[in-house]
Amino acid sequence: MRGLYFDGRLEFRKDLPKPEIREGEALIKVLLASICNTDFEIMKGYKNFRGILGHEFVGVVEQSDNPDLIGKRVVGDINVACGECDLCRIGLYHHCRNRKVLGILDKDGSFAEYLTLPNENLYVVPEGVKDEEAVFTEPLAAALEILEMYHIKPTDKVVIIGDGKLSQFITQVIALTGSDLYVLGKHKEKLCYLKQKANTLLLEEVEKIKIKNIFDVAVECTGNEGGLKLAQQLVKPTGAIVLKSTYNSYATLNPTDWVVNEIKMIGTRCGPMAAALRLLQRKLIFTDYLISGVYSLEKYEEAFSPKNKLKAVFDLRK
Amino acid sequence: MRGLYFDGRLEFRKDLPKPEIREGEALIKVLLASICNTDFEIMKGYKNFRGILGHEFVGVVEQSDNPDLIGKRVVGDINVACGECDLCRIGLYHHCRNRKVLGILDKDGSFAEYLTLPNENLYVVPEGVKDEEAVFTEPLAAALEILEMYHIKPTDKVVIIGDGKLSQFITQVIALTGSDLYVLGKHKEKLCYLKQKANTLLLEEVEKIKIKNIFDVAVECTGNEGGLKLAQQLVKPTGAIVLKSTYNSYATLNPTDWVVNEIKMIGTRCGPMAAALRLLQRKLIFTDYLISGVYSLEKYEEAFSPKNKLKAVFDLRK
Repeated sequence: MRGLYFDGRLEFRKDLPKPEIREGEALIKVLLASICNTDFEIMKGYKNFRGILGHEFVGVVEQSDNPDLIGKRVVGDINVACGECDLCRIGLYHHCRNRKVLGILDKDGSFAEYLTLPNENLYVVPEGVKDEEAVFTEPLAAALEILEMYHIKPTDKVVIIGDGKLSQFITQVIALTGSDLYVLGKHKEKLCYLKQKANTLLLEEVEKIKIKNIFDVAVECTGNEGGLKLAQQLVKPTGAIVLKSTYNSYATLNPTDWVVNEIKMIGTRCGPMAAALRLLQRKLIFTDYLISGVYSLEKYEEAFSPKNKLKAVFDLRK
Repeated sequence: MRGLYFDGRLEFRKDLPKPEIREGEALIKVLLASICNTDFEIMKGYKNFRGILGHEFVGVVEQSDNPDLIGKRVVGDINVACGECDLCRIGLYHHCRNRKVLGILDKDGSFAEYLTLPNENLYVVPEGVKDEEAVFTEPLAAALEILEMYHIKPTDKVVIIGDGKLSQFITQVIALTGSDLYVLGKHKEKLCYLKQKANTLLLEEVEKIKIKNIFDVAVECTGNEGGLKLAQQLVKPTGAIVLKSTYNSYATLNPTDWVVNEIKMIGTRCGPMAAALRLLQRKLIFTDYLISGVYSLEKYEEAFSPKNKLKAVFDLRK
């Protein structure tokens, strides 16, 4: 089958074996798959991944030992848990000690004609949700994990630092809480998309006015150490900093600041897929503007080029 | 009056002016005062403090415009808030933007015959609580702040990293939750004191057996960067790391670990004084063993010497 294989460098291949399913698994024909910043991090060496890249997708089940799934349009939880380790036994499947992660860790991903996942990882996409919406269920769930892990109140003042792909989902999700929401970013055109949902400010303006300690919650999704330092400056004592970036590098930080200001820092990763689908079905998340380019797998170099300011999508439907 | 004045170096002085009170303040004659690790950090340059050192004390009110306080034995909240800034107006007095802190920031401390504090900072010590217990109300409250900021459950598995002065209080406080408690330290003799309250382990043993991700909560109170790194190794995914050390130095950390493992980090500082007094009155905290030496102010060099493994106390009663 055709697919994008990463082996130190990314290449388009036509000779990849079509995967075979084992007991409890489904074979899924990919319809759409989208690029995430984590894919770029993997290409820089994150997780030492080797295999088919990609973890965001919507597809159709072609084979499965669960007959109810066959022919169904599905999205999938990317964490494949062993079900047997101590962490699985207490329900922490996303943190399974032996986990494989679609297109990230020991498991071929979604930038190919076919992928496999356990049946229990699959969520049937409701009829009213288009492919172009469903493909974003995974990053939307990752954004929603913030609300799963921390209680953001309607009266909170919240700042999101970063205006990239993930920030677009996070802003839309936090906007749902009714909180007083600000997004800081470097890119006028990306902030522009968020004006209906939040107050938007260019980072350089913020640096000029020297805001200090006024936010209840700061969400860091810049993908670099500077974002965390700014979060520390912006958040109120006893407030929370939500960490979202996986940039895989060390940062030089002063933990004494967190102690003196009694700051909570909350790391969050993958999130609740079913809840994300509910938001899409309720038309509470806008996705049309997020697609900055649609490509065939062959055109992967264009898809991965910086000209895609937001989400590049591979279309395998034709 | 006599006192220990820090001005780049610590010295005993007999010529310090007796402080005068303003409206709403009390003049307190110090009975006992004890040394905290923060005093050592200040002597290394933390907060650039200049003045009378010390913030742990029990004393007797000699003057006050609140007649109910006169002659009363008291302990005091060390944070003096302005009452007017935006943080005070939302009740975050401990984080007041203009705060002074007894013996730490812009306010003379407790290693002297007299100190002043606002009446509202004072807590009357119940009769059944000895001076030798009451002097530890402040560090006990700082330990108790952990339970104020984070819900430790009876079924949680908790590890405290560090066996120093603060750890002794923290261990006793967390032991009250009924949780399955472990203390890791470098000093056999300090761990020994905690055997009744927790499972104790030498750090070198722990390094040998390579424990990974088994604790719901890790409390870091080693006072160095290594403690935080060990906490990250020991805590379970979705677990919490409570930070207690103010060691005023930068650490090289990888925030991606916190994101991937969905770790919460919780900075905690000063705590609830009234609740700490209630625990002392209920005889739930053992303090006798904590006093490793009793000194006059003149003998401050001995009091600050490393031979005091736990708490050195200045006795000003005679």
